[in-house]
Amino acid sequence: MDSAVGGNQTAIDFLNQRFGDRLTTNQAIRDRHGTDESYHAPKAPDAVVFPQTTEEIIEIVNVCREHRTPIIPFGVGTSLEGHIAALKGGVCIDLCQMNAVLSVNAEDLDVTVEPGVTRKQLNEHLRDTGLFFPIDPGADATIGGMTATRASGTNAVRYGTMRENVLSLGAVTPDGRYIRTGKRARKSSAGYDLTRLFVGSEGTLGVIVDVTLRLYGIPETIYSAVCTYPTVDDAVNTTITTIQSGVPIARIELVDEMQMRALNKYSNLGYAERPTLFFEFHGTKAGVAEQIENVRAISDDFGGADFASASRPEDRSKLWQARHDAHYANMQLRPGAKAWPTDVCVPISRLAECIAETRKDIEETNLVAPIVGHVGDGNFHVDMVLDPGDAEEVGRAVALNDRLVARALEMDGTCSGEHGVGHGKVDKLAAEHGDALDVMRSVKQSIDPLNLMNPGKIISL
Amino acid sequence: MDSAVGGNQTAIDFLNQRFGDRLTTNQAIRDRHGTDESYHAPKAPDAVVFPQTTEEIIEIVNVCREHRTPIIPFGVGTSLEGHIAALKGGVCIDLCQMNAVLSVNAEDLDVTVEPGVTRKQLNEHLRDTGLFFPIDPGADATIGGMTATRASGTNAVRYGTMRENVLSLGAVTPDGRYIRTGKRARKSSAGYDLTRLFVGSEGTLGVIVDVTLRLYGIPETIYSAVCTYPTVDDAVNTTITTIQSGVPIARIELVDEMQMRALNKYSNLGYAERPTLFFEFHGTKAGVAEQIENVRAISDDFGGADFASASRPEDRSKLWQARHDAHYANMQLRPGAKAWPTDVCVPISRLAECIAETRKDIEETNLVAPIVGHVGDGNFHVDMVLDPGDAEEVGRAVALNDRLVARALEMDGTCSGEHGVGHGKVDKLAAEHGDALDVMRSVKQSIDPLNLMNPGKIISL
Repeated sequence: MDSAVGGNQTAIDFLNQRFGDRLTTNQAIRDRHGTDESYHAPKAPDAVVFPQTTEEIIEIVNVCREHRTPIIPFGVGTSLEGHIAALKGGVCIDLCQMNAVLSVNAEDLDVTVEPGVTRKQLNEHLRDTGLFFPIDPGADATIGGMTATRASGTNAVRYGTMRENVLSLGAVTPDGRYIRTGKRARKSSAGYDLTRLFVGSEGTLGVIVDVTLRLYGIPETIYSAVCTYPTVDDAVNTTITTIQSGVPIARIELVDEMQMRALNKYSNLGYAERPTLFFEFHGTKAGVAEQIENVRAISDDFGGADFASASRPEDRSKLWQARHDAHYANMQLRPGAKAWPTDVCVPISRLAECIAETRKDIEETNLVAPIVGHVGDGNFHVDMVLDPGDAEEVGRAVALNDRLVARALEMDGTCSGEHGVGHGKVDKLAAEHGDALDVMRSVKQSIDPLNLMNPGKIISL
Repeated sequence: MDSAVGGNQTAIDFLNQRFGDRLTTNQAIRDRHGTDESYHAPKAPDAVVFPQTTEEIIEIVNVCREHRTPIIPFGVGTSLEGHIAALKGGVCIDLCQMNAVLSVNAEDLDVTVEPGVTRKQLNEHLRDTGLFFPIDPGADATIGGMTATRASGTNAVRYGTMRENVLSLGAVTPDGRYIRTGKRARKSSAGYDLTRLFVGSEGTLGVIVDVTLRLYGIPETIYSAVCTYPTVDDAVNTTITTIQSGVPIARIELVDEMQMRALNKYSNLGYAERPTLFFEFHGTKAGVAEQIENVRAISDDFGGADFASASRPEDRSKLWQARHDAHYANMQLRPGAKAWPTDVCVPISRLAECIAETRKDIEETNLVAPIVGHVGDGNFHVDMVLDPGDAEEVGRAVALNDRLVARALEMDGTCSGEHGVGHGKVDKLAAEHGDALDVMRSVKQSIDPLNLMNPGKIISL
């Protein structure tokens, strides 16, 4: 096993005495905690500790601060830009044992959870209340992780992202204090918005230890639908017109030909291998019927074919499971390959152009890289399927990603719609934010002056 | 005229040379710029300057910083917690000459404006696009001011507050740099959310110089409605049930008996002087009909009477004008009186209880203080109508406000749902935020180390 350097080892010795078998330096466990679902090189922490309470996290943070030991909060490891890689070693705080739903306030449509609760666990817990938590990034991520990366996913187009759906949160700051960023009121003008500062902070400002989320009533009626189009342009233009028409669509997802092929193969499905939109409609019975009618008419104008809708839960689940399997399906396209999913987001008026140029670029670069997208938000993913041992091919992928980000920025978009920065996109922030990056750096330094919280992520110091 | 102290006078002399008749030290103009619509004592700045460009604002900030002169950004002066009072003197930056709509992106449903654009001016500008900007705090505030105070108002229940509707913004920071907090993409996970940090920062972190806002399609159908209830409890319970049922109501406003009396008197109307809800419904024709049917049924369950709806624009305007005139109407309740509007926001499950206890408290305190509220958000206002020369009466109002805030906090609510902190509620933040207030202070100090930006507001240093 690698050994931890100086202060880190001392901190681990202290923590070992305190936490006993809830601290481990086992190599396999450490490796697992330095590895996310991304292409980026993993980097194991020196130790992994499993706290059960906020007070224990405060203890851990205090010991680590005293010994200048980095701290990396960990949910379930589904991040996609190397967020959990222990670039400077240190202690990984695995929050899986803090997975209680603390309080459901059905009347107020909110819930407070510990950070290790996963989104599926939460919805299972809510099952009998008639309420649900909509944010769905595909993976069964933890609420703490989703908060830290400002996750969104397929139905952000209707319900917003974690930005809109975290009402307030509790965090342990690097100085070892518990703070709460707000109360349960729906809105507040009482001071700086620390909630939104911590949402998307990727563990760099503190350890998120509880989160209050907005909930929604389960819609009276849910329909999903699938429709294929002659070209990606037609599918994107259907999306743009749908959004501009104000249809309150719950999901509108683009899957390109190559991705459809991968899905069919992976899940043994029989979808047409053409550019496809997957839809979901939420509302009253009459409202959903009206939405479907409107979207079908728009779809027809752009050559949509075989518009098929489904309302049975099992049919809807099957459809969305296929969509969510995209990343795993892509890895099966080439034996031994790894998939590198990257994402950008642009104003919707530029989306068709951005995807078309990117599709052309992928072809010219001669890479296997399906495109899927939360196109209602202008957000899409390119999932580059690579042989990680082929340096030349990896080089082409790096260059493709660089051009993709530059294209998105040039179109007034962002280098990441939802995957976040991690260390994979640290070098993209200067081009996106200019001098604002210095303000982010000031904020980081004011809250974490010793740069102990997940160092090397978002802000390179 | 008062004279500016040392450095302030030097800064003003410099700026005077540079800006000529776009800088004034005229007492009447200074007084007007230190006076908002609140009860709080005004405090005039030493000078008022009227820049026309971001570059000019950078010049002003640089001169002021060099001479350690406070800077107070000013929109149109409709704030309600003394936000613009020049507590430490200094230079007021009046942004009224920066009132251009910079670009309307109808396809993307967004617009970028200079900070001096007012919300009515913006909607007038958008008139032919079929789009509108929904946030409506009543007063015709500037977009810069609304952004700075995280304003909301009557239709936040459906469209959110400035928090949800500012996509990104540009600001001049205290070190004299222009930063942009984001691009036009609908969502982003690329770094700290500086947009939300500046929204609600009340001029304490920089001067907001451009704002990109979300727009919405003007609904196909709009209906307003009015209904009276036996008690305030019944009106509030109608609200709670409506929200919990998921009706996408656009506005749901409570007006209590005393406020109805004031409105009738001020605008010569004939409304019943009972607890009343004002509603607005947005949607398709069928959708609005369904919403009205649902709300009317809920209303009936709580003894609602005389449910009357209107769709003609002139009838709707008349209704909402009456609601928006509440503050002005209240000042007419007692000749020579001033009105002190305070606001709190609580989880909706506690709203009926909070309003009932507050109504009782008002009666026991023997004050004239109508209640109105954006009750769909759990937010309500107590407008205390006072003789400002009567110290004993003012003392009772101060105590009432203290108890109101304590009551809201005890119910997991906030000391201000939408008016903000200014200097009127600076002393309330410690109880609300605890140690999180220290994090806010760190952020303030990191961005404005000399405490020159609107000093004494939000953070007391």
